[in-house]
Amino acid sequence: MFKFTITKKSKKSRARLGLLKTSHGVIETPVMIPVATQASIKTLNSEQVKKTGSQLLICNTYHLRLRPGEKVIKSLGGLHQFMNWSKPLMTDSGGFQVFSLGFGRDFNVSKIIKGRVKSQIKAGQQPKLLKITKTGVWFRSHVDGRKIFLGPKESMEIQSALGADIIFAFDECPPPHANRAYVSDSVELTHKWAELCLKHHDKKQALYGIAQGGHFRDLRLKSARFIGSLPFDGFGIGGELGGSVLEMKKMLAWVTAELPEGKPRHMLGTGHPEDIPAIIASGCDTFDSIVPTHFGRHGTAFTSSGRLNLSNLIFLKDKKPLEPGCECEACTGYSRAYISHLFRSRELLGMQLLSIHNLTFFNRLVSDIRRKIEEGKF
Amino acid sequence: MFKFTITKKSKKSRARLGLLKTSHGVIETPVMIPVATQASIKTLNSEQVKKTGSQLLICNTYHLRLRPGEKVIKSLGGLHQFMNWSKPLMTDSGGFQVFSLGFGRDFNVSKIIKGRVKSQIKAGQQPKLLKITKTGVWFRSHVDGRKIFLGPKESMEIQSALGADIIFAFDECPPPHANRAYVSDSVELTHKWAELCLKHHDKKQALYGIAQGGHFRDLRLKSARFIGSLPFDGFGIGGELGGSVLEMKKMLAWVTAELPEGKPRHMLGTGHPEDIPAIIASGCDTFDSIVPTHFGRHGTAFTSSGRLNLSNLIFLKDKKPLEPGCECEACTGYSRAYISHLFRSRELLGMQLLSIHNLTFFNRLVSDIRRKIEEGKF
Repeated sequence: MFKFTITKKSKKSRARLGLLKTSHGVIETPVMIPVATQASIKTLNSEQVKKTGSQLLICNTYHLRLRPGEKVIKSLGGLHQFMNWSKPLMTDSGGFQVFSLGFGRDFNVSKIIKGRVKSQIKAGQQPKLLKITKTGVWFRSHVDGRKIFLGPKESMEIQSALGADIIFAFDECPPPHANRAYVSDSVELTHKWAELCLKHHDKKQALYGIAQGGHFRDLRLKSARFIGSLPFDGFGIGGELGGSVLEMKKMLAWVTAELPEGKPRHMLGTGHPEDIPAIIASGCDTFDSIVPTHFGRHGTAFTSSGRLNLSNLIFLKDKKPLEPGCECEACTGYSRAYISHLFRSRELLGMQLLSIHNLTFFNRLVSDIRRKIEEGKF
Repeated sequence: MFKFTITKKSKKSRARLGLLKTSHGVIETPVMIPVATQASIKTLNSEQVKKTGSQLLICNTYHLRLRPGEKVIKSLGGLHQFMNWSKPLMTDSGGFQVFSLGFGRDFNVSKIIKGRVKSQIKAGQQPKLLKITKTGVWFRSHVDGRKIFLGPKESMEIQSALGADIIFAFDECPPPHANRAYVSDSVELTHKWAELCLKHHDKKQALYGIAQGGHFRDLRLKSARFIGSLPFDGFGIGGELGGSVLEMKKMLAWVTAELPEGKPRHMLGTGHPEDIPAIIASGCDTFDSIVPTHFGRHGTAFTSSGRLNLSNLIFLKDKKPLEPGCECEACTGYSRAYISHLFRSRELLGMQLLSIHNLTFFNRLVSDIRRKIEEGKF
């Protein structure tokens, strides 16, 4: 079962309120999706994740293909039962790993995005550790070095075995420093793979196509139009979207204008607090983000008055909770001082408490925006 | 407030049932005490620890002296408030670190205990990284290398600032491979320090003296008699107690026969499941153990049918919970397969789930023994 209903549209932006119905429950959109790469939100059990207000999670096909393997998960009743998560689940297609384990590894990509390093990937060029062919990608496992092939057919089969509610088409996520010719070829490949994914889709799960195109307006428009014309249940927006909120907003506007209005849109792999209003205002219904948990594990708490680095000595005498008024388990039980002590003493509980708080904070941020859209104030 | 009442004695052994009343609640004894070295049961928040059935925790004075410092904890309202634990707390005195950071570091002590390596520490000999004087011990901080002095006076002051319900006298814990002359001198030092601790005790917390004596019967008897004659609120049994359950039982019998019957006895730093019946049968009321959490973090689950090493491939397809029938959060929500996946994929949630299960298992083991004593079947 999969049904998307838009319940309200903002008059001031492309933002919309919606309900995404799946056989594991109804999701209120827009929504932030925490990332459970290896079928676990790092440091938290599923009951703790639920208490942060999280409505659905996304797991990584590539990682689960390697460990424990989709057959193991299927034999154990599928991903929901395996990880003790009764609410909806997404799996990505493995396409992002074509980037992150490929060109994403070769260069300091964040410096390239910020324009500090100039480097161009040209058409036909291959990353060092994987090989992109017309039918898919040869990976070298980051676990044991064995060769793994992932293409549209394989990705559909693996995601079918994993059994998430929403799955993605296998795409190539081109590097941000790819030249126009490279991205143009890459978009063609992604489009061919999209058709193959539809062909191999067993129709038991909702399948989202992914529009690519890098930072090239014409390629973004072309990809959004083509992918948007295919009979997918929803659409992902992938690849690089600029180095600033303004650039992202501009590029998202190109894409969302071309995608069918009535189907759900997912922005792949992004989401700092400052990005979130722009993502939603651009008409995205869902987005996944490692930011709350990744930063939490490294000692950063997000609050309405900015980020706190809990390893900092000044917090060791701070009796306040991370965010006064926050009702999460971290804020109702523990002081900044204690959490600072945990990080300074390398106690793993610090990671747990900040992950709980940050997920709660992000979910609250998004539910506040939902309320504002409802009230016509967004 | 501190009151110990023996409610029932076993007829077949020295085991007794008791109630230990503190201002943070009543503890049913015998009881296992989880170790929260740095004011945290590693990987678990205090609500999770409470749900495992844990009645009181023990924290380490030496570690908290270094990080965050007892003054910080006092200014934050004391240890209970700092770590969000409203039930009773103990702190050790730092005496065990004289061993663990001293001679305990120089040799492979477990091999010495098992007789595989012969080595003797002689009277007057000093460990490499610390210096034992008549008034206390100079440590080199394991955090930043600065010199720290801890003696009976300092230990009492620090433990007073930390504010646990039950504190321990500062002692020297001699190494298991110390010769008779060394242990004899060491016992004298511990006895002098015990008197100094009583002198510096501010009487707001229950103070336990520690009987030492190594594996020498006459020294054990002498120390138990002397420490037992002092006006402590309870007694700790420290130092080496042999390399087998039988030896431990024999040595504990020497000591508990000499300690005052009406006061509580704590066995310091031990407790594998197979030791626990012997510890209780010897007349110990409390004992602290890192075993459930330490082994849990390293992938071992304790069950009524033995240990499971969850990293083992055979568990990856095992749908059963760790211990069928166990009502802990790990066993009611997750399969052996999932927990095995977490350990094999280095997901920190594995540590959390095994820590929860193992603490629950140990607490159940001890509460079953309490019931058997009550029913006259132990």
